[in-house]
Amino acid sequence: MRVRNKPWAPKLIAAHPELITEDPTQLKGQWQSRFAKQQPLQIEVGSGKGQFIIEMAKRHPEINYVAIEIQTSVIAIILKKLVEEPLPNLQLAHADGQAVTAFFEPHEVDRLYLNFSDPWPKSRHEKRRLTYKSFLAGYREVLKPNGQIEFKTDNRGLFEFSLTSMNNFGMQFEQVWLDLHAVATPEDNVETEYEQKFSQFGPIYKIIATFPAK
Amino acid sequence: MRVRNKPWAPKLIAAHPELITEDPTQLKGQWQSRFAKQQPLQIEVGSGKGQFIIEMAKRHPEINYVAIEIQTSVIAIILKKLVEEPLPNLQLAHADGQAVTAFFEPHEVDRLYLNFSDPWPKSRHEKRRLTYKSFLAGYREVLKPNGQIEFKTDNRGLFEFSLTSMNNFGMQFEQVWLDLHAVATPEDNVETEYEQKFSQFGPIYKIIATFPAK
Repeated sequence: MRVRNKPWAPKLIAAHPELITEDPTQLKGQWQSRFAKQQPLQIEVGSGKGQFIIEMAKRHPEINYVAIEIQTSVIAIILKKLVEEPLPNLQLAHADGQAVTAFFEPHEVDRLYLNFSDPWPKSRHEKRRLTYKSFLAGYREVLKPNGQIEFKTDNRGLFEFSLTSMNNFGMQFEQVWLDLHAVATPEDNVETEYEQKFSQFGPIYKIIATFPAK
Repeated sequence: MRVRNKPWAPKLIAAHPELITEDPTQLKGQWQSRFAKQQPLQIEVGSGKGQFIIEMAKRHPEINYVAIEIQTSVIAIILKKLVEEPLPNLQLAHADGQAVTAFFEPHEVDRLYLNFSDPWPKSRHEKRRLTYKSFLAGYREVLKPNGQIEFKTDNRGLFEFSLTSMNNFGMQFEQVWLDLHAVATPEDNVETEYEQKFSQFGPIYKIIATFPAK
């Protein structure tokens, strides 16, 4: 996602260390200390402007969420919303979501969301796709045994790749949707900004898959 | 596939025991004896009017094919084409393709094709879908170690089910297509009659998956 540069972003981030961290490695194994309640932890890798994770946090006060987003001007948008309407169960990490093993202890995370990740369509960029096996290995490490990934995309090539990659990695498919909006209602599908805009142009794909306990 | 009753069908079938069998259990382990050459054996479960398997047999004289189809008036159409234009590497079986383990010895088959199988959309008919685990177990038995299935359908629900079923069965995905006709040319995709007619209405899905040697 590209957004215009926001000159106010760094200042806002610096002003709210209680809501956002710029060095999530320091919170490794300590994430629960950032929340009002000790409860299951779910993370989103690449949160964009945060519509999904904010709505999830509102709907599920019994779960703690961490939104990870690397772009300063993008995560600042989430932070701005959070300052205006506080949510005790949502924390932000301004960092590269690819490095989850540096940010979370093994088994610290209950569930991981990937929404509309960069498709990296060229074959030579395959290793950058967030469902490439090296990233799956990282997710498995930080997730609890039998932890799950929920992954949505509108990119056909990325979803084809991801089905094969997740299968070959030994993940167990729980459910696959090849046209999510044909069956899901707004009650059971929390949309991202991107999804709201682009679902009119083609199907939204989704998978829920488990890393089986070894 | 439903076709009009063909009064001539039983007579034509009876007249060509060299091309078609009505009791494939008698050929179990003996299929190579039905062909001019001893070479790899590939089978299609549910061949319809045979456009796919006939074209495959023409393109691949180095492979032996068996087309299995239960409907008398449908397999008679394949037989008629075969009588008019003989193919030494195609044999027909007028039988219920679900019973592959009764027709083939373990490891007798090199590859198995499922094309546009009945979707059985109702949940209570799940067990009838040809990618249900009980059928997968039968395919695994008759296929060689590391044998593959190629499966095409235009039915979204059946493909969603099949991805999950094949994954949960421990099959390894080789490649997945979520819109086959967007990328495949007639040179690398042999179409069925049904596919030619219905691909204009929505995507054709395809998967190639392997039963890993235990």
